[in-house]
Amino acid sequence: MNKNFMLTISYDGTKYLGWQRQKINNEKTIQGKIENVLKKMTQNNIQIIGSGRTDTGVHAYKQVANFHWDTDEDAKYVLNYLNKYLPEDIAVTDVREVSDRFHSRYNVKNKTYLYRIYTHNVPPVFERKYVYYLPEILDLNKMKKAAECLQGEHDFKGFSTKSTKKSTVRNINEIKINVMEKEIDIFITANGFLYNMVRIIVGTLIEIGLGEKEPEVVKLALNEKERSIAGMTVPGKGLILYSVEY
Amino acid sequence: MNKNFMLTISYDGTKYLGWQRQKINNEKTIQGKIENVLKKMTQNNIQIIGSGRTDTGVHAYKQVANFHWDTDEDAKYVLNYLNKYLPEDIAVTDVREVSDRFHSRYNVKNKTYLYRIYTHNVPPVFERKYVYYLPEILDLNKMKKAAECLQGEHDFKGFSTKSTKKSTVRNINEIKINVMEKEIDIFITANGFLYNMVRIIVGTLIEIGLGEKEPEVVKLALNEKERSIAGMTVPGKGLILYSVEY
Repeated sequence: MNKNFMLTISYDGTKYLGWQRQKINNEKTIQGKIENVLKKMTQNNIQIIGSGRTDTGVHAYKQVANFHWDTDEDAKYVLNYLNKYLPEDIAVTDVREVSDRFHSRYNVKNKTYLYRIYTHNVPPVFERKYVYYLPEILDLNKMKKAAECLQGEHDFKGFSTKSTKKSTVRNINEIKINVMEKEIDIFITANGFLYNMVRIIVGTLIEIGLGEKEPEVVKLALNEKERSIAGMTVPGKGLILYSVEY
Repeated sequence: MNKNFMLTISYDGTKYLGWQRQKINNEKTIQGKIENVLKKMTQNNIQIIGSGRTDTGVHAYKQVANFHWDTDEDAKYVLNYLNKYLPEDIAVTDVREVSDRFHSRYNVKNKTYLYRIYTHNVPPVFERKYVYYLPEILDLNKMKKAAECLQGEHDFKGFSTKSTKKSTVRNINEIKINVMEKEIDIFITANGFLYNMVRIIVGTLIEIGLGEKEPEVVKLALNEKERSIAGMTVPGKGLILYSVEY
C-alpha cells in the first residue's frame, strides 16, 4: 500500500552543512543522513521533502518532512528504524501516516524560528553550541519597538542576502522577545522566510539594543529594500527551527 | 599581598581525562588547563587545589578549587582573566578571596553528585553528552527502597573499585530521586565518595529498577563488602559534580 509518512525531526546542526541534500558532501547534510537510512530501510532511493532548508550549523527542535513508501509497515516501525540507525545528533521525535496529498513544503502555514542570545557574563559551558554569546546589556524597549515595526506583511528584500526574481513579500505574525536571567530568546513566526532573514533581523535588533542603531532603521530598511541598511548577520549556531505549522 | 582565591568552576568533561593534573597529557585535564592559564597570568607555576577529582568524561556544575598568589589584583581580575583564556568547555563562575587557611579539599563538609538517566524513547539530541540514555521503564518504588538503605554511615567498600588501606566508611546524607517526563535524576549527597562510588550506586539502583536485582542486594553488598554483589558501573558522561558544601 502506498503510504505518505510525515516525520518530525530534531537535530543538532553543529557538524552539518545544513538540511539540504548535496551532490558532494551529502554525508554532511541532515537530509542526506536521513535518506541514507531510508534507503537501507526501503531498499529504494527515497527522496524526502523538508518544510524548508536550514543553513550550516543551524539546529531544529521540530523540522517536518515527508516521504512516500509502498509498504505494509506502520509509522512506529519507521520511527524505530530511523532512530536505530541515525547518528546521535539527529532524532525522529514523531512519525505519522498522512493523506497522500500532504506536502511538507507547499502546505506550510507558518514557521517559527528561535534565536538564543546568551547575555550572562560567565560563558555558557553546556549551551555553548546552541547560543550566540553576547555578554552585553541590551535596551529591550528599543528592541521591542523595532520588532513591532517588522510585524505584518512587508517586502523583506532589505533583510536578505540572496537576490531572487520571486516575491520577497512575507508576513511576520509575531516577534516575541523573552528575557531570562542569563539569556534573551527571540521567537519569530512568519508564513515564510527569505535567505538569512531571521539572522539579519536578529542582528539588527541586537545593534539597536546596543545603541549602535536607532529603532527607525527598521522602517528605512523595509522601505529602501537595501541590505546595507539593516544590521549584521548573526551566527547560525544560535538559530533553531522551533516549529512548523500546517 | 598573599591572597587565597577560591574558584567555582563549571566544565563539560566530554573531551577531558578528568580533573586531576597528569604528567603526560596534562593538556587533557581540567586542572592542567586552568593551571596553564594561571601560569600565564601570574608568571609563576601555580598549583590549584581541587575539592576532589572527577573522572574521565565526568562534568561539573560547581567544582571548587583554590590557589595562593602574592598580588594586588582582585577576584574580579582573576575571574575575567581565566574566562578570557580558558577553552569554551571550562568556565569560572565565581572567584572570591578567602581566609588564608581555607583548603578546598580538607574543608569539604558535603558534596552532591547528580546522575542523569534519560528514559524517554526518543534519543536525546541536545543533551546526549550529559545523560545516560536508557529508554526503559524503571520501578521507582523499588529504587527508592534500596536508596533508603544506603543513606547514613556505612562501609561502602562493596561500592568501589579501588582497594585502599584507608577507611572506606562514608556518610550519605541523602539520596534524592527526581522523576521528570523524559528523565530520572539521582542526587547523592555525602561527606565523601570512594572511587566510582556514585556510578556503582546508580548502576545498582538501575538494575533494581529494571527488576534484575532485588532491593535487598544493597544491604548484602554493604555487609559483605564485595564489589561483585552490587550492580554495573554506569558511564561517566551522565555524572555531574553538582555542588560542594563548606
